[in-house]
Amino acid sequence: MPDQPVARYTYLGPEGTFTEAALRAFVGTEQVDSEPAADVVSALEAVRGGHADLAVVPMENSVEGGVNVTMDTLAGSREPLVIVGEVVVPVSFVLAVVPGTRREDVRWISTHPHAWAQCRGWVARELADAAHMPATSTAAAAALLAERGREAGFDAALCSALSAQRYGLETLAEGVADNPHAVTRFVVVSRPGPLPEATGADKTTLMVHLPDNEAGALLTMLEQFAVRGVNLSRIESRPIGDSLGRYSFSMDLEGHVAEERVAAALIGLHRVCPLVRFLGSYPRWDRRAPHMAPGTHDADFVAAREWVEDLRAGRV
Amino acid sequence: MPDQPVARYTYLGPEGTFTEAALRAFVGTEQVDSEPAADVVSALEAVRGGHADLAVVPMENSVEGGVNVTMDTLAGSREPLVIVGEVVVPVSFVLAVVPGTRREDVRWISTHPHAWAQCRGWVARELADAAHMPATSTAAAAALLAERGREAGFDAALCSALSAQRYGLETLAEGVADNPHAVTRFVVVSRPGPLPEATGADKTTLMVHLPDNEAGALLTMLEQFAVRGVNLSRIESRPIGDSLGRYSFSMDLEGHVAEERVAAALIGLHRVCPLVRFLGSYPRWDRRAPHMAPGTHDADFVAAREWVEDLRAGRV
Amino acid sequence: MPDQPVARYTYLGPEGTFTEAALRAFVGTEQVDSEPAADVVSALEAVRGGHADLAVVPMENSVEGGVNVTMDTLAGSREPLVIVGEVVVPVSFVLAVVPGTRREDVRWISTHPHAWAQCRGWVARELADAAHMPATSTAAAAALLAERGREAGFDAALCSALSAQRYGLETLAEGVADNPHAVTRFVVVSRPGPLPEATGADKTTLMVHLPDNEAGALLTMLEQFAVRGVNLSRIESRPIGDSLGRYSFSMDLEGHVAEERVAAALIGLHRVCPLVRFLGSYPRWDRRAPHMAPGTHDADFVAAREWVEDLRAGRV
Amino acid sequence: MPDQPVARYTYLGPEGTFTEAALRAFVGTEQVDSEPAADVVSALEAVRGGHADLAVVPMENSVEGGVNVTMDTLAGSREPLVIVGEVVVPVSFVLAVVPGTRREDVRWISTHPHAWAQCRGWVARELADAAHMPATSTAAAAALLAERGREAGFDAALCSALSAQRYGLETLAEGVADNPHAVTRFVVVSRPGPLPEATGADKTTLMVHLPDNEAGALLTMLEQFAVRGVNLSRIESRPIGDSLGRYSFSMDLEGHVAEERVAAALIGLHRVCPLVRFLGSYPRWDRRAPHMAPGTHDADFVAAREWVEDLRAGRV
Repeated sequence: MPDQPVARYTYLGPEGTFTEAALRAFVGTEQVDSEPAADVVSALEAVRGGHADLAVVPMENSVEGGVNVTMDTLAGSREPLVIVGEVVVPVSFVLAVVPGTRREDVRWISTHPHAWAQCRGWVARELADAAHMPATSTAAAAALLAERGREAGFDAALCSALSAQRYGLETLAEGVADNPHAVTRFVVVSRPGPLPEATGADKTTLMVHLPDNEAGALLTMLEQFAVRGVNLSRIESRPIGDSLGRYSFSMDLEGHVAEERVAAALIGLHRVCPLVRFLGSYPRWDRRAPHMAPGTHDADFVAAREWVEDLRAGRV
Repeated sequence: MPDQPVARYTYLGPEGTFTEAALRAFVGTEQVDSEPAADVVSALEAVRGGHADLAVVPMENSVEGGVNVTMDTLAGSREPLVIVGEVVVPVSFVLAVVPGTRREDVRWISTHPHAWAQCRGWVARELADAAHMPATSTAAAAALLAERGREAGFDAALCSALSAQRYGLETLAEGVADNPHAVTRFVVVSRPGPLPEATGADKTTLMVHLPDNEAGALLTMLEQFAVRGVNLSRIESRPIGDSLGRYSFSMDLEGHVAEERVAAALIGLHRVCPLVRFLGSYPRWDRRAPHMAPGTHDADFVAAREWVEDLRAGRV
Repeated sequence: MPDQPVARYTYLGPEGTFTEAALRAFVGTEQVDSEPAADVVSALEAVRGGHADLAVVPMENSVEGGVNVTMDTLAGSREPLVIVGEVVVPVSFVLAVVPGTRREDVRWISTHPHAWAQCRGWVARELADAAHMPATSTAAAAALLAERGREAGFDAALCSALSAQRYGLETLAEGVADNPHAVTRFVVVSRPGPLPEATGADKTTLMVHLPDNEAGALLTMLEQFAVRGVNLSRIESRPIGDSLGRYSFSMDLEGHVAEERVAAALIGLHRVCPLVRFLGSYPRWDRRAPHMAPGTHDADFVAAREWVEDLRAGRV
Repeated sequence: MPDQPVARYTYLGPEGTFTEAALRAFVGTEQVDSEPAADVVSALEAVRGGHADLAVVPMENSVEGGVNVTMDTLAGSREPLVIVGEVVVPVSFVLAVVPGTRREDVRWISTHPHAWAQCRGWVARELADAAHMPATSTAAAAALLAERGREAGFDAALCSALSAQRYGLETLAEGVADNPHAVTRFVVVSRPGPLPEATGADKTTLMVHLPDNEAGALLTMLEQFAVRGVNLSRIESRPIGDSLGRYSFSMDLEGHVAEERVAAALIGLHRVCPLVRFLGSYPRWDRRAPHMAPGTHDADFVAAREWVEDLRAGRV
C-alpha cells in the first residue's frame, strides 16, 4: 500500500494557542505536520499559496462573537478557499507568571483583547488593581513573558494551559473565565477540491450580498431558506466597506450542499442575490442532525421533481 | 399525406349558448365536429369516456365569478382531465320573444340565474314589473320559448344573439348587460397527453389543498409562488366538502410548466401540500406575456443550477 | 315594565326553507315576527329600508361554497349592513310528492340548483332516469307542487322536511344528501348599531380590495393577519366586476373587533388596502374559542402599548 | 437669564482620538467641558454613575463593522442608557513619528488593531517590512511614542491628525487609509430622560432577543418591521453568550419612536420577543429623511385607528 502524503497544517500561532489545541483535537493524534502562522491572514494565505494544505483559524466565540478577520479573509479574495471541517473547544484561561511571581505582584496583565474581554469580571474581582496590556495573541503574551521576564513590561499572561506549559510558566490561577461555558469554534480551511462527504449532520458556510439596500431585502433572502426548511445556525452582518448601511451576511446553514434542500436554497440565493460565495460544506463537530420539517427530505424533492417531469411529458 | 383525424368537440349546450360561440371562436372556422352536452358534468364526462376529444365549458365570469361545477368536476375525479386552451368572449344578451310579442307584454323572463344576475339592473330600469323564471341555460330558455310559445309559461328569454337567431326568435333589445365590459372565460378540456407548447404567454391551472387548517397555511402556499416570482391571475377557494372552514384553492398561474420558475413552484407545492392537482398549461387567449422579475428567467435558473452542480463537484 | 319592541325578521323564503329553519334555531322560540322575502336581495333591502329589523340569509354551504349573492349584496352598497349573528344547520332533504305518487312515477324533480348539486349522487343511484327542473328555492318547488299537483310540470320536489310538512306533501325518502355532514351557515343581518358584545368566541366578517393587482398583494394582505396572530376561518375571492383577474376577498376572522389583535389587524388593512368593508363582529354558533398564539392576547397588546408610552415619555 | 448648566462630556480617550474629533463635531464649538475615559466601558459607566452627562463612543466603522464593546455595554446592564445623538466622521490616518525619524527607519508601527486593519494595504505597499504592535487606541500609540521616543518599542504611530498635533509628533504621511471613503459612526449617550424631538430624519436603536432559536425566528422579527414599512439601517448579531448559535440583534431603525410606524413596530416586537431593549431615538447626522411607503405615514395610522374606534362604537 503506497504512502498517503501527510497533510501539512498551519494555524493561528504562536505555539500553544487555543488554535493549536483545536488543531490537535481535529487530527486526533499527537503527531501532525504543522507550523504556526503569525496571524489569520498569513495562515490563510499559506494555504492559498500552497505552502500548507490546511489552516486552522478561529471563526467565532460564544462570548465575543464572530472573528471578523477570518470571515473577511475567507470571503474577500478572488482565490477561493473552503472550509472542510470545524472544531469547538471550551475556552478557559490560566493566569501564568514567571516562577516566583506572587499574586499581589500582578499589576499588568497581557493577553489578546478578546481573552481580556472574557476575563474582565474575574480580574475585577480577584485582581482589582490590575490593568490590561494588549497582545497579538494569548500565546504571544506567554512567550514574551517567558523570554523577557520582568522586562516584558507586564507581570502575568492570561493564556491557555498549553501555552503556560509550553513556555515553562507557573500557573497562579486556572479555569479563569467569566462564562464557564464559553467555547470557541475553529474552522479547518483548504483550497477547493472534492467536498467532504455528507454525513447527515453538516454545515454549509456562505457569504452573501443582499439583492438591494432597501427594506425587505434581508427578509427576501431569509425566505429563500424558509421555503426550503433550511435552518441557519449563525448569521452575522459584515460591512461591505464602501459606506455605512451596506452589509454582506456571513452565515452557516444546517445541511450539506449535496442535500436537496440546501441545493435548492443556494439556487434561490444565486438567482436573487448579486453575490453568493460558497465557503464549504463539512461535518458538524457535535454530530447533531438537524430537525427536518415535513416535505424537506431529499426524497420529497426527488418525488416532486419526478412528478413535474411527468407533467411536462404529459403523464398527468 | 394521410388525413388527420378531425377533433370531436362537445360543449355546454344546447345549441346557441355562449359556450358554442366560444367554441367557434376557438377553432376559428364555421366547420367543426361538435355536439352539445346537457350540462358541464356531461360535457366533461364525454371527454373522460372518449365520446368526445375536447370539451368547451365556462370557467369564470368577470361579474359572477368562478363556475363551481367546472372547477369541482375538473378537479374532483380520479380520471384526470387537463385544460389545453382558453377563450374569453364578451357577454351581452338579447331580449328574445316569439314574433308579435310587444315589450309591454313581457311579465316573465326566463334565463339562467347567472345571466339574470348580469341583467338585473337593466330589467329593473326597462321592465320594472318583469320577474325571473330560472332556466338551465340561456339557450334552453330560448329553445323552450320557440317550441311552446305562450305555453312556455314565460314571455321572453334573455339569451345570446346566436340563440335568438338559431331558434327563430325576434329581438326586442340588444346589448343587454349591466356591465358593458362583462366577459366569460371558457376552457377547452381534453384527456391528458402531450402539453401545448409553451408560447411565452401561458397559464397553468392547479387545484391545491392546504398543508393544514391553521393560520398561515395559505401564506405558506403563496410564498412558494412568491419566492419564484410566479404571479397568480386567479385564485378561488372551494369547500373541500367535509366541513365548514376546510378549503381547496383553484388557481391560475402566469406561465407554463415547461418554464423553470413554474416548475420550481410546483415542486415546492408538491413538497408542502397534501394534494396538488395539475390541470394543464396552455396559451393565454390575450397572448399577454407576464412581467418577469429579475432572477426568474429560465436562464437564471439554469445558471444557478449549474453553479450548484459545480460546487457539488468541488469546482468552487 | 315597558314592553320591549319585538324584532321583525325577514328571511329567504318562501315559508319552509332551510333559512326559516335557521331563523327558528337562532331565536330559539316558536313565536317570532317574521316574513319571507322573495330572494336574498329583497331580504337585505327590507332591512336597509327599515321594513324589517333583521334578515336571515344563507352565507355558505359546506359542499357548494359561498353564496355569491349574499356576499355581493352585503358588501356592494353604500348603505352599510352588518352581521350580528350566525346559525349553522345540517342540510338534508326529503323527496316530497303529492299523496299517491309512487317512486316509479318520478321522472322530473324540481329543486334549487344548489340542492340538486348536493343530491345528484343519490338521484343517480335511486332514480336513475329522473331529470332536474330548476326552481328558485327548495320551498318554491314544494309550494308549486302542492298548488298545481301533476300540472306543475314535475313529479317531486327535493326540499326540507319543514317544507313538505307545511305544504301537506307526502315523503318518499328522507335524509337525502350525498354528504351526510353537509351544513349550511346562515347569517343574521341588521342595520349598523351597537355591536354584539365580545364573548371570547366570535367572528368578524370583512370584504377587502387588494392594494394592487400584482403578485404578492394577497401575501401582503395576509401578513397583516399573520403578524397579529389572527386566524381566518373563511376566505373567498369575488370578482370586482370590471375585468377578469381583479378580485375582492370576503373573509371571516376568528375574533371580535373589540379584541386588540383584531383591531390591530384592521388598522393594518385600512392602511394598505384601497377598500376595507367591515361587515360585523358576532358570536360563533359553535362557541369555540380560537387558539391564541403567545403574545396575541389583549393583555400583551396593552402591556406593549404602555411600554411604548413609557419610552415616549422618557421612562426607559 | 439664568445660566444653563453646561453638559459634562466624556469620550473614548486619550486626547486626540477620532472620538474627541467626533465630540467636537457634535457640539460644534471649541469650548466644551470634556474628559477622556480609558475605554468604552469606563466612558459609559461614568455616565451611569453621574460623573458625566454625556459620553461619546464609537458604534460602527464602515470597514470594520460594529464596535462590540459599545453594543454590549449599552445593552447589557440593568441601568439603562440611551443614545441621544450620532456623529459620522471620515477616518484617515497620519503616520506620526518623533521628529527626525525617516521613513526607512520605520520597522514597527503601533496603532489600534482596527486602525491597522484599515491601513494594511497601504503599509504593505509603502512600508513592506513594517510590522504591527497593537495599542489600546490610536491616540495611546501617539502618546506613548511622544513620551518615550525610541524607548517606546516601536518607530511610528498610525493615528489621527489631531493626535499627532496634540502630542507634538511629526507627520511622515497623511490620508493613510485603504478605503478613502471610510467613516466611523459615533453615538452620544446619556441617562434616560426626555427624548430628543422627532425631526423627520431620525434613528431608533434597539437590542432584541429572538422569540426562539428555530428557523424563521429572525424572519418573524423582521416581518414586524416590514408590515409597518419600517426600514433598518443597521443590523448586527451578537452572541447572547450562553452557547454558540444563540444571538441577540443590535439594530437601527429609520424613524423616531414618536412616529406611529415605529411605535407600532415596537409594540409588535414587545409582544413576540422575550427581550427588547430601547436604546434611544435621535436625529440622523446626515439629516436624510426616510423613504415612506404608502400607508405608513402618521396620518394613515391615525385615520385607521379612528376608523376602528368608529367600528367599535357601532358607527360603520
